[in-house]
Amino acid sequence: MIRELSFNLFEMNTVGHISHGMWRSPQSTRHRYTDLEFWQERAALAEAGLFDTIFLADVIGAYDGYRGGPETALREAVQIPNNDPLLVIPAMAAVTKHLGFVATFSTTYEPPFTFARRASTLDHLTKGRFGWNVVTSYLPNAARNFGLDDELDHAQRYARAHEYLDVLYKLWEGSWDDDAVVRDAAAGVYTDPGKVRRIDHSGEYFRVAGPHLSEPSLQRTPVIFQAGSSATGRAVAAKHAEVVFVGGSSIEDFAASIADIHRGAEAAGRGPGAVRTLGSAVLIPGKTRAHAEAKAAQYQRLSSAEGYLAHAGGGSGIDLAAYPPETLISEIIASGLVGHDAATAARYTPGTTVADALRETTRFDRGPFFALGTGEEIADAIEGWVRETGIDGFNLRQFVTPGTLEDFVEYVVPELQKRGLYRTEYAHSTLRENLFGAGHPRLPEGHHGARYRGGQNL
Amino acid sequence: MIRELSFNLFEMNTVGHISHGMWRSPQSTRHRYTDLEFWQERAALAEAGLFDTIFLADVIGAYDGYRGGPETALREAVQIPNNDPLLVIPAMAAVTKHLGFVATFSTTYEPPFTFARRASTLDHLTKGRFGWNVVTSYLPNAARNFGLDDELDHAQRYARAHEYLDVLYKLWEGSWDDDAVVRDAAAGVYTDPGKVRRIDHSGEYFRVAGPHLSEPSLQRTPVIFQAGSSATGRAVAAKHAEVVFVGGSSIEDFAASIADIHRGAEAAGRGPGAVRTLGSAVLIPGKTRAHAEAKAAQYQRLSSAEGYLAHAGGGSGIDLAAYPPETLISEIIASGLVGHDAATAARYTPGTTVADALRETTRFDRGPFFALGTGEEIADAIEGWVRETGIDGFNLRQFVTPGTLEDFVEYVVPELQKRGLYRTEYAHSTLRENLFGAGHPRLPEGHHGARYRGGQNL
Repeated sequence: MIRELSFNLFEMNTVGHISHGMWRSPQSTRHRYTDLEFWQERAALAEAGLFDTIFLADVIGAYDGYRGGPETALREAVQIPNNDPLLVIPAMAAVTKHLGFVATFSTTYEPPFTFARRASTLDHLTKGRFGWNVVTSYLPNAARNFGLDDELDHAQRYARAHEYLDVLYKLWEGSWDDDAVVRDAAAGVYTDPGKVRRIDHSGEYFRVAGPHLSEPSLQRTPVIFQAGSSATGRAVAAKHAEVVFVGGSSIEDFAASIADIHRGAEAAGRGPGAVRTLGSAVLIPGKTRAHAEAKAAQYQRLSSAEGYLAHAGGGSGIDLAAYPPETLISEIIASGLVGHDAATAARYTPGTTVADALRETTRFDRGPFFALGTGEEIADAIEGWVRETGIDGFNLRQFVTPGTLEDFVEYVVPELQKRGLYRTEYAHSTLRENLFGAGHPRLPEGHHGARYRGGQNL
Repeated sequence: MIRELSFNLFEMNTVGHISHGMWRSPQSTRHRYTDLEFWQERAALAEAGLFDTIFLADVIGAYDGYRGGPETALREAVQIPNNDPLLVIPAMAAVTKHLGFVATFSTTYEPPFTFARRASTLDHLTKGRFGWNVVTSYLPNAARNFGLDDELDHAQRYARAHEYLDVLYKLWEGSWDDDAVVRDAAAGVYTDPGKVRRIDHSGEYFRVAGPHLSEPSLQRTPVIFQAGSSATGRAVAAKHAEVVFVGGSSIEDFAASIADIHRGAEAAGRGPGAVRTLGSAVLIPGKTRAHAEAKAAQYQRLSSAEGYLAHAGGGSGIDLAAYPPETLISEIIASGLVGHDAATAARYTPGTTVADALRETTRFDRGPFFALGTGEEIADAIEGWVRETGIDGFNLRQFVTPGTLEDFVEYVVPELQKRGLYRTEYAHSTLRENLFGAGHPRLPEGHHGARYRGGQNL
């Protein structure tokens, strides 16, 4: 029995997130990302399609690792211009009741105290529908926007992330008791001061007094999403993540990663089913197969190779335009001329050349979760992937906004519903309950963050 | 000829902002501050009343200077619990077209790069209706929430504020040209990279590379509000502020401060009329004078002395409960036992005792801009204040939410309109144009921030 699948709309407060060149489609409304109405329309449609969430990616720097500067990223609208992801959530929450909202926020550059309050505010305003995608950031330009010469090294970023999360749990879970707000007008007591406490955190990276400024929200800690695939990233996932975004180049890769993630969570003392896993789904549904093929041909025609290369160059730190095509990626990394770590090397299988990497970055149909066809054909594919990998759901990659989402809702959702793989209505109103079942809007007991409840372990 | 007056609704994302004890009123809906709908109702009513803005105060710490801890502030809901001010703006923007939104944000604890993007995002989402109230923060507890032992000293906070503002202007005004976004699908150019530049700021407090991540919004730089009354605060106002919030204990004080602010701005090379001034208005309108008096009596009855004292203790750093009533405030400051600076001393006239200060903090009818009565009587008072001081408008203090605003819109607005002192409809859709007239959504040429336009002076 497969659990109900999670579908999340993979979004970003920008023109071009991961489908580069597609802003040129006459059907694209991406340039309207600066309008409130754009986001409210997105949210209403995602809720009509019974999605778990709108999942907002983010970067806080420009991709300037390709051709020696940010020019290509600017020309191709590769994640620049972009706007803040948190600020579109309240407007979307106002037109929805059940849809969740996940925003990406980095533990590396901004202080935990104000992020704690922003997250609590969003959990209040959405009435328990907020999730946080924990990242440590990776663009060198981002580091230079915050007073550093270059990125902190990988181990240091993750050590900082662990402590950052601890500060947040202390504020979210430990600082206010559930019954702290009494609102007793006759006695003149709004909050019982005996049920609120400072956290007095003093660690290697942070000193934070508290108390938390926000009263407890429905979920307190937002649902924790995470995507790190390195060993240190996996350690963060095992301890903290409730939903893990998994990558991989084959079905076997995914199956192995997913099993590893569940093992990690159990080894960390968390029960089975404590973590859900997600992959990125590249789906091109149509009324008929020919209809879907025509769409795919249009997407391939509009895809911008330069856009993908600027994105890949910024992300991996390797400027593929700077090397002969037959160069091995492993040699570039070994040369030490690129500021890089094991995570980058792990993206490329041994023997990958610059030419291979170029092809890999410009084709959208090479991942294992690619399907094209009628709703029935796509539902078949999804069902197969789920059975083979044990994955719990997907972030839907968009080619055309709003077309991709409209097509998915029209063609694929009814097919998945017929098979019992997809909800026919929302069962709950908090995100954590929609993911993990009734009665659990808060972090489960076995989760590391729960240890601070009632002011314990502060 | 008096210019049209500015009215702003003085708000905060909290239960008890400045009218302590009033949450106990059976008419109060303040406990709903965690709901989106609360803010959307506030905004719709303020726009119906043709207000300039909803002006959101903020603190990022607890008032713990009274009776040795935050207990009183918690019990009395003195600005705790509180939530983030920026995040309610998008929901309010979604139900309004002309109303502006001013949020308080401190230059002391968070990095400028991400604040620049948040402000640009809000200016985009509101279509040019965002204003920023620049503060440097003042609560010792706030400092301890960001890794410091105590507040930075006053001079250092303001030196940092000047540089912080420069970084922001470089990002907002200098990094992208107006015609940078070309969106030319045929040529495959979203942004012309020749019209976007890094700022490469390197100063005493900040190093920020850029480019700014957001494309230009309607106003670019949000309308700059400021409230500092010290000499260093006034220097910030003279150079940067477009709207200055003025304090004072008499009409003469206000008149002198307002003249001083205008002189400062002109000395800084800014034209006459470059700055608008605001005071806090304490108005209790009623259908009849007796109706207003009954309201005032209720407000006085519900006022919480402990709440005001917790607020004053946190703000001045002087715990008034710790001294005999006849003690001179000047002696307390001179003792050096309170961590204090000239700004605090300046709040108290010579000869003020602890007993005087107590009285001052618990009465709401002692300021010069207090009026009670029919709409006509209140309009008379307002007209008098404006003629005597030259002030441009007011932040309306609330006693009961939503009652105070409803009363003002019902009783006072029509009277002010009859006299030509108040708009009868919004003339513009950006905040800066509603304040300074048509054709000026951007900072005026003489403003310091305008010097970075086109990448000059970076």
